[in-house]
Amino acid sequence: MKKDNLKVAVMGGGSSYTPELVEGFIKNHSVFPVRDLYLVDIEPGRQKLETVGNLAKRMIEKAGVPINLHLTFDRREAIEGADFITTQMRIGMLDARSRDEKIPLKYGLIGQETTGAGGFAKALRTVPVVLDIAKDIKELAPDAFMINFTNPAGIVTEAVLKYSGIRTMGLCNLPIGTRMQIAKLCEVDVSKVDIEMFGINHLNWTTRIVVDGVDITSNVLNKAAGASGLTMKNIPDFGWDAEFLQSVGALPCGYHRYYYMKDKAFEDMNKKFLEKGTTRADDVKKVEAELFELYKDPNLAIKPPQLEQRGGAYYSEAAVNLIKSIYNNTRDIQTVNVRNNGIIPFLPDDVSVEVNCVIDSQGAHPVQIASPISPQIRGLLQVVKAYEELAVKAAAEGDYLAGLQALTIHPLVGTAELAKKLLDEIISANKEYLPQFK
Amino acid sequence: MKKDNLKVAVMGGGSSYTPELVEGFIKNHSVFPVRDLYLVDIEPGRQKLETVGNLAKRMIEKAGVPINLHLTFDRREAIEGADFITTQMRIGMLDARSRDEKIPLKYGLIGQETTGAGGFAKALRTVPVVLDIAKDIKELAPDAFMINFTNPAGIVTEAVLKYSGIRTMGLCNLPIGTRMQIAKLCEVDVSKVDIEMFGINHLNWTTRIVVDGVDITSNVLNKAAGASGLTMKNIPDFGWDAEFLQSVGALPCGYHRYYYMKDKAFEDMNKKFLEKGTTRADDVKKVEAELFELYKDPNLAIKPPQLEQRGGAYYSEAAVNLIKSIYNNTRDIQTVNVRNNGIIPFLPDDVSVEVNCVIDSQGAHPVQIASPISPQIRGLLQVVKAYEELAVKAAAEGDYLAGLQALTIHPLVGTAELAKKLLDEIISANKEYLPQFK
Amino acid sequence: MKKDNLKVAVMGGGSSYTPELVEGFIKNHSVFPVRDLYLVDIEPGRQKLETVGNLAKRMIEKAGVPINLHLTFDRREAIEGADFITTQMRIGMLDARSRDEKIPLKYGLIGQETTGAGGFAKALRTVPVVLDIAKDIKELAPDAFMINFTNPAGIVTEAVLKYSGIRTMGLCNLPIGTRMQIAKLCEVDVSKVDIEMFGINHLNWTTRIVVDGVDITSNVLNKAAGASGLTMKNIPDFGWDAEFLQSVGALPCGYHRYYYMKDKAFEDMNKKFLEKGTTRADDVKKVEAELFELYKDPNLAIKPPQLEQRGGAYYSEAAVNLIKSIYNNTRDIQTVNVRNNGIIPFLPDDVSVEVNCVIDSQGAHPVQIASPISPQIRGLLQVVKAYEELAVKAAAEGDYLAGLQALTIHPLVGTAELAKKLLDEIISANKEYLPQFK
Amino acid sequence: MKKDNLKVAVMGGGSSYTPELVEGFIKNHSVFPVRDLYLVDIEPGRQKLETVGNLAKRMIEKAGVPINLHLTFDRREAIEGADFITTQMRIGMLDARSRDEKIPLKYGLIGQETTGAGGFAKALRTVPVVLDIAKDIKELAPDAFMINFTNPAGIVTEAVLKYSGIRTMGLCNLPIGTRMQIAKLCEVDVSKVDIEMFGINHLNWTTRIVVDGVDITSNVLNKAAGASGLTMKNIPDFGWDAEFLQSVGALPCGYHRYYYMKDKAFEDMNKKFLEKGTTRADDVKKVEAELFELYKDPNLAIKPPQLEQRGGAYYSEAAVNLIKSIYNNTRDIQTVNVRNNGIIPFLPDDVSVEVNCVIDSQGAHPVQIASPISPQIRGLLQVVKAYEELAVKAAAEGDYLAGLQALTIHPLVGTAELAKKLLDEIISANKEYLPQFK
Repeated sequence: MKKDNLKVAVMGGGSSYTPELVEGFIKNHSVFPVRDLYLVDIEPGRQKLETVGNLAKRMIEKAGVPINLHLTFDRREAIEGADFITTQMRIGMLDARSRDEKIPLKYGLIGQETTGAGGFAKALRTVPVVLDIAKDIKELAPDAFMINFTNPAGIVTEAVLKYSGIRTMGLCNLPIGTRMQIAKLCEVDVSKVDIEMFGINHLNWTTRIVVDGVDITSNVLNKAAGASGLTMKNIPDFGWDAEFLQSVGALPCGYHRYYYMKDKAFEDMNKKFLEKGTTRADDVKKVEAELFELYKDPNLAIKPPQLEQRGGAYYSEAAVNLIKSIYNNTRDIQTVNVRNNGIIPFLPDDVSVEVNCVIDSQGAHPVQIASPISPQIRGLLQVVKAYEELAVKAAAEGDYLAGLQALTIHPLVGTAELAKKLLDEIISANKEYLPQFK
Repeated sequence: MKKDNLKVAVMGGGSSYTPELVEGFIKNHSVFPVRDLYLVDIEPGRQKLETVGNLAKRMIEKAGVPINLHLTFDRREAIEGADFITTQMRIGMLDARSRDEKIPLKYGLIGQETTGAGGFAKALRTVPVVLDIAKDIKELAPDAFMINFTNPAGIVTEAVLKYSGIRTMGLCNLPIGTRMQIAKLCEVDVSKVDIEMFGINHLNWTTRIVVDGVDITSNVLNKAAGASGLTMKNIPDFGWDAEFLQSVGALPCGYHRYYYMKDKAFEDMNKKFLEKGTTRADDVKKVEAELFELYKDPNLAIKPPQLEQRGGAYYSEAAVNLIKSIYNNTRDIQTVNVRNNGIIPFLPDDVSVEVNCVIDSQGAHPVQIASPISPQIRGLLQVVKAYEELAVKAAAEGDYLAGLQALTIHPLVGTAELAKKLLDEIISANKEYLPQFK
Repeated sequence: MKKDNLKVAVMGGGSSYTPELVEGFIKNHSVFPVRDLYLVDIEPGRQKLETVGNLAKRMIEKAGVPINLHLTFDRREAIEGADFITTQMRIGMLDARSRDEKIPLKYGLIGQETTGAGGFAKALRTVPVVLDIAKDIKELAPDAFMINFTNPAGIVTEAVLKYSGIRTMGLCNLPIGTRMQIAKLCEVDVSKVDIEMFGINHLNWTTRIVVDGVDITSNVLNKAAGASGLTMKNIPDFGWDAEFLQSVGALPCGYHRYYYMKDKAFEDMNKKFLEKGTTRADDVKKVEAELFELYKDPNLAIKPPQLEQRGGAYYSEAAVNLIKSIYNNTRDIQTVNVRNNGIIPFLPDDVSVEVNCVIDSQGAHPVQIASPISPQIRGLLQVVKAYEELAVKAAAEGDYLAGLQALTIHPLVGTAELAKKLLDEIISANKEYLPQFK
Repeated sequence: MKKDNLKVAVMGGGSSYTPELVEGFIKNHSVFPVRDLYLVDIEPGRQKLETVGNLAKRMIEKAGVPINLHLTFDRREAIEGADFITTQMRIGMLDARSRDEKIPLKYGLIGQETTGAGGFAKALRTVPVVLDIAKDIKELAPDAFMINFTNPAGIVTEAVLKYSGIRTMGLCNLPIGTRMQIAKLCEVDVSKVDIEMFGINHLNWTTRIVVDGVDITSNVLNKAAGASGLTMKNIPDFGWDAEFLQSVGALPCGYHRYYYMKDKAFEDMNKKFLEKGTTRADDVKKVEAELFELYKDPNLAIKPPQLEQRGGAYYSEAAVNLIKSIYNNTRDIQTVNVRNNGIIPFLPDDVSVEVNCVIDSQGAHPVQIASPISPQIRGLLQVVKAYEELAVKAAAEGDYLAGLQALTIHPLVGTAELAKKLLDEIISANKEYLPQFK
C-alpha cells in the first residue's frame, strides 16, 4: 500500500547542511525511495542553492540512485502533492544571527542563537515565514508531514501547531546526540542505549538511562560529572559538578548550562566578544564560506568530512530516521517535538513538548513518562515554556505586550526594564523581517 | 547483561491451559531461555497438576530444550528469586464459577464469569489469594514481574497495584484476539494490523485500525456490522447493527454485548439455563474433563489441538510475547493492564487500565491515545471503572458497604435492592473463600 | 452605581407559576426594585397569559409597588435592554409532557418529566427554543443574565453555555427545598442550615450538613433513613434504607430514587398508569385548570395558597434570592447550575454542574468541594453527565447518532435496541417541535 | 451551639505586634468572646513577654472586657484545649533577620526578609519550630485552628499542611492592605471593594477589581501606574510603568517589585547598605526598641499609634476577621493561604496557595478563579512555587540537595554556583537554629 512516487521538499535547500540530508536519502533509498527531491530557496540564496544543488546532483549520480533532483525558487511547486516537507531556514541569514548574539551581550545577558533574547529575536523573524509555508501545505499537500528543523524548533513547531491545521513535528539533533554521547561514555554501541528524555526543545532532561536493558541512570550521573562528552559542538563545556547533578536527579542537556551556569556562560561569551569582537555566528560564517568553497569542487561527489565540524552532527540521521519510520510505519521510539496533550501533565495541552514518541504512519505518539518529575525540573520547565507561549503569541500575532512579558519572565532576562529595552532594540534591528509588528 | 538462569513460576500450574504456556516457552526458547519452570498448585489440585506436569515433561523432552521442570505445592520455593511469575488461578474451581453464573440469572441479570455480579463474586474470592502471592513476591523476588492472567484481570491487577509494591501487569488474550479477527476480516496477515485500543479489561474500544500503514477504521466499522468474527469463543455473537456501530464511533469488544445488548444476552443465557439447567461453566467442565483425559495419554507429547476449542486462544501467544519483550527489551507495543497515571485523563491515576504500551525491560509504558474520546465511550467506561474501584475495595478490605455500592452502580445491576440481595447471597454462597468478610 | 430602571423579562409568562414570581418581586421591591416587568408568551398561550397577567396586575396594585407590568407576545421587545431574563417554558405544554411520561412506560422504563427518556424528549423540544432566545439576548441585551428555570435545567443550561455567548445560570428549587427539609428534620430555622451540595441538576448529593456551625452530616444520614420529608412534592417517597444511606456516604436527592430504586419507582408509576390510565402530567393538568379558574377571580389579588400544592415550592424564593444577590452584589452562597470549569475535577470543563456558588454582581463563582468524593458518587454522576452531553448535542444539532448513544448509555435505558425504539418514537411523536431533526 | 469558653493561644506572644492583636480581641469581644488568652514565648524573650503582657493587661482592664490573660513559657499548657492558636514568631530574632538580608547582598542579590535567599534562610529556621508546635496541637488540641502569621507564611503553612494533620491557614496582611489601597485610590469605602486575588503568599495578583458591583479592573490598572499607594510600608515604592501593567493584565503585589524590577530593588537596598551599613532589620530594631520603651509606660493602656508605623498595618484586622468568621460561621470571603487542591489548576494539589476563600466554621473554602490566567502570571507563579516546595522539603527534612535546587531555580538566584555558596553560608550562619541539618 506504500507510495512509490515519494516527493520530498526541502525548504531552505541552499543550506550548507543539505549534503547531510542528501547523503541520508541516498543511503536509505532502499527503505525510503524518494523519487522527487525539491531543494527550495529564495532568490537572494540563488548562488548557495546552485552550489549545493550541483554537489547534490553529483552525489546522486555517483551513488546511482533514481532520485530526481529539482532546484527551485517556487515554493508552491515544490510543496504541491509532497509527502514530506522539511524546513531548515535561517531568516536574515548569519548576519541576523550575529545581531541576535550581540544585542543581549550589551545588556550583560547570554547572547545565544536559540536560547534567551537571541532565540526570541530569531523566533520573531522565523515564525511568520514558517506559518506562510504551513498555509501553502494546508492548501497544496494537506496530508503531508512537515518536519521542522528550523530553530528555535520548540517555538516554531508550537506556532505551526497552534495557527495551522497541518501535520507537523519539530526535530532536533540533540536527543540523538545525547544517546551517542552516553554510548561513548559507557563504551557501548548506541543501539544498546535507551533513554527517557523529556522537556522542551533545548531544555530537556534525561531521566532514565537504560543500557542493554539495565537501568544505569545513577551510574551515568556519576560518570557525567565533569565529563566533557555531554555537550553539543557549539556549546562550551564547563562540566557539571557531581553534587549538583545529584541534586537535579537527571541528566541536563547542553543548553542547561545557559541556565544553571549562566554567569560562567556569559563570561565565556563576553570575553570572546570583548577580545575578538566576534560571536559564534562569526565562526560559523567562516566555516560556511569554507564549506561552500569545498562544495564548488566539481570533483567532489560525496558529503565532505569537514561538514561534521559544522555543529549539526546527527542532523541527517535524525531527519532520515524520522521520515523513514513514518513511511515504513516502524513504531520505534524517537524523541520529537509534538503537541503536549497531557503527556507532561503540568504543562498546557496545546504547547509543544519534546518527548519520547512512538513513530508510525499516523505520526508521533508520546509515551508516558515513567519517572516521577521533581519540582526542580518542573518549575524551570514551566517558566521557560510560559516564555515560549508568549513568544509564539508575539511572533505569530505581532503582540508587543506578549513580547514584553515573554522577556520579562524569561530566567535569562528577568526584569521589566531590560525586557523593554531588548524588545525595542530587537524589533528595530530586525524591522525588515517583522511584518507582524508593522 | 541478560540473565541466563531464568526462573519462571506459574501460579495455578495445574490449569488445563498450562500446555499452551509450555508450548510457548518451548517454541521461544532461543529468545527466552527459561532454565527453571515451576508449576505451582494447591494440594486439592494435586491430580491435575501431576497430569499436566507429566504432559509438560514429555513436551519438553520431545522438544529437546534445556528447561528444568518443577512441580510443587510450595509457593514460596517457586517464587524465591523468580524472574517472572504468572498467575492463572481459579479459586473455588468451576463449581464456584457455576454459582457465579447462576445466582445473577435468578434475579433476571446477566450471569457471566467476569462481567457484572458474577465477575464481582469471582473478584471477592480471587483478590485475597493474589494479594497473598504478591506479598510473597515482595519478600522473595522483589524485582520480579508478576504477569496476571487471573480474571477479572482488571480488578485483580488493580488490587495488586494498590495494595502491594510489586511490579505487575494484567494480561488478557482479547487484544491480540481482536487484531487476529481484524486481520481475518480484512484478509491480511496479522503482522500488518496495528490497532489503538483502550479502556479497561473486558470493556475496551478499538478506536483506530491501521492496516499496512493506512487508517481504515471507518472501513472496518462498516464491515464489522453483523460480522461474526469479532467476538471471543465464549461470548455469543449477536452481530452489531451498522448504524449503532457508527454511533459508537469505535469497535466495541465482545464483552460490550453484555452492556449494549444486555436484554438479548440475558435471554440467550437464561433460555439455555431454563432448558438445560446449565451455564457456560458446565460446558467448560465437560471440555476440561475431556482435556485431562487426553493429557493422561503417555504418548501425547505436544499440546493437543483440542485445547484451542477451550476459549483461551492466543493465551500462550499473549503471555510469551509479553515476557519475551520484557526480557529482550524489545520496545514493541502490546495492550496490557497497567496503572493509569493519567493516560486515560478522565479516570483516576491509581486505577488499572488496558491500553497500548511500549514494552521494555523496565515494564510497560502507556502510549498517548491519539483519538478524541467521545462522551459515549467516556461515560460507560467511567461508571464501570468506579464499580471496579469499589469491587477492589470490597475484595481487598472486606468492605461490605463498598460491595453494596459496587453492585448498586453497576450498569448490569443498578438498584440498591438487587445489589443488597446479590451481595448477601454471593457472600453466603462463597463464605469458605471469603476470609476478608469474616 | 446600581441601576434603578431595572427591567425583567419572563419567558413563559403565562405559566401558572408566575404569581409566585410576581409575589417575590413585590415582597423584595425594596432590595430589588423592578421598574418594568415583561411577561412574554406565545400566541397559543394568549388566554393563560391574560389570566395570569391580570392577576399579576391586581397583585401589584394591591401591594402598591411601582412596577410597570407589560404583557406581550413580542419576545424581542421584552428582551431589549433587559437586566434579567427568566425562562420557564413548556414547549408542547402538558400534552407533550404526558407523552414524555407514557412512551417510556410502554417499554418498561421510568416515565418522568426530567429524568430518563422523558427528560430527553423534553430536552429535544426545549433546547432549540431556548437557544433562539439566547440569540436574541446576545443581540439585544448582551449584559443581561438569563436565569433558566426550564427543565431539564442542567441540559438546557449546558446548551446555552456551549452554543451562545451569554451570561446564564440554571436554577432549581431542589437545593433550597433540601435545606428546608433538613431544617424541618432537625427542627431548626433554615437560616441555621448550611449544606455542601454538588452534582448536576436533579442528580446531586448533599455531602456535608452544618447546623449552627456544627457538622452533623452523619447524624442527619441516620435520621433521614426512612424519613418522609426528604423528597419533592412530585416524587414518590419510598424512604431510604439506613444501611444503604451509609454506603452512599451522603444524602441523595429525591430524584435519586429513579436510579437507586428504579424497579420500585417504575412499578409505582406503572401501576397508576395501568389502573387509571394517567401519569403525573394528567394530575398537573387538573391542578392547573383549577388554578387558572382561581386566577380568573377578579377579587383575587394575592398568590392563592393552592399554588403551593403545585410542586414548585420555593420556586419564587430561589429565583428572587438569586436575582437580588446579583443585583446587590451580596456574595452569599447559593446552589446553581454553572459551567464546571474544573470545580468537579472528574467532569469536563465545559459542562453544566449544580454546585455551591458565591453570588455577586459578576455572576456565580463555584466554591471548592471540601468532602472527598467517593467512587460511588463519581461513577453515577459521570455516566449521567455523559448522557447529558450527548443529549445537548442531539438537541442542539439534531444529531441522531448522539441521541442514540445518549439513550444507550443512560442508566435508565441501557441497551442499544431500546434506545433506538425510544428515539424513533420520541422524534416521531414530537415532530412538530423538532425542526433540528428535519 | 457556639462555645462560650473560648481559649486562644498566641505563639510568640512577646512580639511588638501583640498589642494589635489584643486590641482586636477587645474590640470584637461581643462577637468573639475570648475567655482565656495565652501569650506564649520562650525564656530568652522573658523581658519582652512581660513588657507586652503588662501592657495587654492594662488594655484589657481599661476596656473592661472579661478576658483572662495568661503569660507563659509553657507552650503545651497554652495549647491544651485551645480553640485557636496563632503563631507570630521570629526564630533568631532581628539579628538573624539582619543576616538574612546581608548575606544575599554580598552576592549581588536581593536581601529581603521573606523573598529570595533571605526568605529561604528564615524558612530553614522557622519550619522546624512550627512543626513542633503543630505536633503539640495534634496531641493537645486536635480540633483547633492554627492561624499562621509567621513568615515566610506560604512556606511555613505548606510545611504544616504537608507534615502534620492539623487544621491550619496562613494569613498575611497584604490582601486586606491591597483592598485598603484600592479603596483609597478609588476614593471609596473599603467595604465597597471586592477583589479577585490569587497566587501564593507575597506573590499574588489582583485579577479583578469590583467597586460597588462594577468591574473597574482596567480602570484601576491605569490609575495604578506610578501610583504610590499600592505597596506595603516596608517595600520601596518604584511605581509601575503603565504599559508594563497593561502587559501583566492584573495588579501585581508589592513584592513583585523584587522580581519585575529586581535590578532597581537591589540597587536601592545595596546603596543603603553601602552607605549606612544597615538593612531594613536595623531600622526595625530601632523601631522595636522605641516601641518597647513606650510599652513600659505604666500609664499606657491602649495600643500606641506608633505601632502602625511598624509595617504590620491591618495585621490585627486580618487576624481577628478570620477568627471571628470561623467562630461565627460567617461565610464571608477572605484571602488566606490554604491547600491548593486544584483551585489553581496548574499547581500541585498539596501546595499552599493564597486565594479568595469562603470562611465558615469548618475552615476556608477556595472560590473558583473567574479570570483566565495568562502565561505571564502562570509561569512566574509556577517556578516560585516549585522553589517553595523545595524549600519546604529542605527545611522540614534537612534535605541539602533540595535546598541547593531551591536556590538554583529561584528567579532571584538562578545559578548553581551562587546557590551553593549561599546555601553553605546560610547553613553555617544559622547553625544553632538548624537541627535538621546536623
